[in-house]
Amino acid sequence: METQHIPPEWAFEFHGHRCPFMPIGYRMGMEALAHLGVEREQDHSFFIFPELGEGHPQTCMMDGMQVATGATYGKVLMAKTFYGKLAATFYHPSKGGVRFVLRPDFIDEMGAFEFFAYRKRGVEPSQIPAAIVDEVTQWMYERSDEAMFKVEPKPDFSFEPVKGSFNKTKCSACGEYVFDRYVRIKDGLPVCIPCSGYGKQ
Amino acid sequence: METQHIPPEWAFEFHGHRCPFMPIGYRMGMEALAHLGVEREQDHSFFIFPELGEGHPQTCMMDGMQVATGATYGKVLMAKTFYGKLAATFYHPSKGGVRFVLRPDFIDEMGAFEFFAYRKRGVEPSQIPAAIVDEVTQWMYERSDEAMFKVEPKPDFSFEPVKGSFNKTKCSACGEYVFDRYVRIKDGLPVCIPCSGYGKQ
Repeated sequence: METQHIPPEWAFEFHGHRCPFMPIGYRMGMEALAHLGVEREQDHSFFIFPELGEGHPQTCMMDGMQVATGATYGKVLMAKTFYGKLAATFYHPSKGGVRFVLRPDFIDEMGAFEFFAYRKRGVEPSQIPAAIVDEVTQWMYERSDEAMFKVEPKPDFSFEPVKGSFNKTKCSACGEYVFDRYVRIKDGLPVCIPCSGYGKQ
Repeated sequence: METQHIPPEWAFEFHGHRCPFMPIGYRMGMEALAHLGVEREQDHSFFIFPELGEGHPQTCMMDGMQVATGATYGKVLMAKTFYGKLAATFYHPSKGGVRFVLRPDFIDEMGAFEFFAYRKRGVEPSQIPAAIVDEVTQWMYERSDEAMFKVEPKPDFSFEPVKGSFNKTKCSACGEYVFDRYVRIKDGLPVCIPCSGYGKQ
């Protein structure tokens, strides 16, 4: 019997609704931790590069990944690649990387569940009957890892976060603090990007 | 007495460590919900544009914002502006927006606590003694909203997420699914961005 990796109740509270994709991302994240042999990240040493983008469904996977691994957006440990794919690369500096992909056959089988008929009619997840959500989620829990995931070891994957600094400067126009990396100069004075009028270049 | 907005215990579990910034972001998020008169977002109708970036501390605020509001990265409801500022704009389509900024005087006062001496020596938050973390966090809970936040109503703020689609196509090279927005054409065949070799243009 494989581990179903059912998320803790607070994961659903965090996410805001019940759907199959937060639990799928949770399971993917738990499997990635196990594959790389690391514990949930407390601080800043585990990174996820989800290949999802915007303007498409199933991004909820990323909330499950945050919950499972501790590689949160707030800790600057998660950044989308905007490839529009149901996949992610997980990376630990001392363990290398691994890419998990949802198999197309799994996606096709899952797509036949009634949950997706509701979603395609524009019904928000919180408004879909619990039995409909539970049906597809339970089906997912019962799939094997092999049926769900293609797993690609990426031992040579590498990523170096930008060097950090605590230095900050007050914007001479609005008076608000700006971390030095983002300070711009206008008429000889330090300003923040919005006050500079320069855009993000 | 003002509401301290102490995060639920699971928020610390989600975040992975104890630090003052996740609770600061939580309080900012709770205040923003109250200001706009909305409940925590279950689905996809509340957006946060944090002005934080990378290569600087205190980004942990964003995890507190996700927890408080339900506007999570996984639901594509949070996107950084990369301005390097300790501020965020919160937006609900039927309520308009509001910008919250940490006041420079608050940041300066907080910076004197020993927690920051540890952080500047490179000690990760999970390794800082609990009493040191609690000292600055408790001090923050006892500040008034007025002392912490500058609040700027943005009634005319507007944001329209990109139009979504469920349509997807199998990459003719790797066989993996790609949502149609991200499909590229190479030699007349549909491919994903990595297989295209085109980069993200």
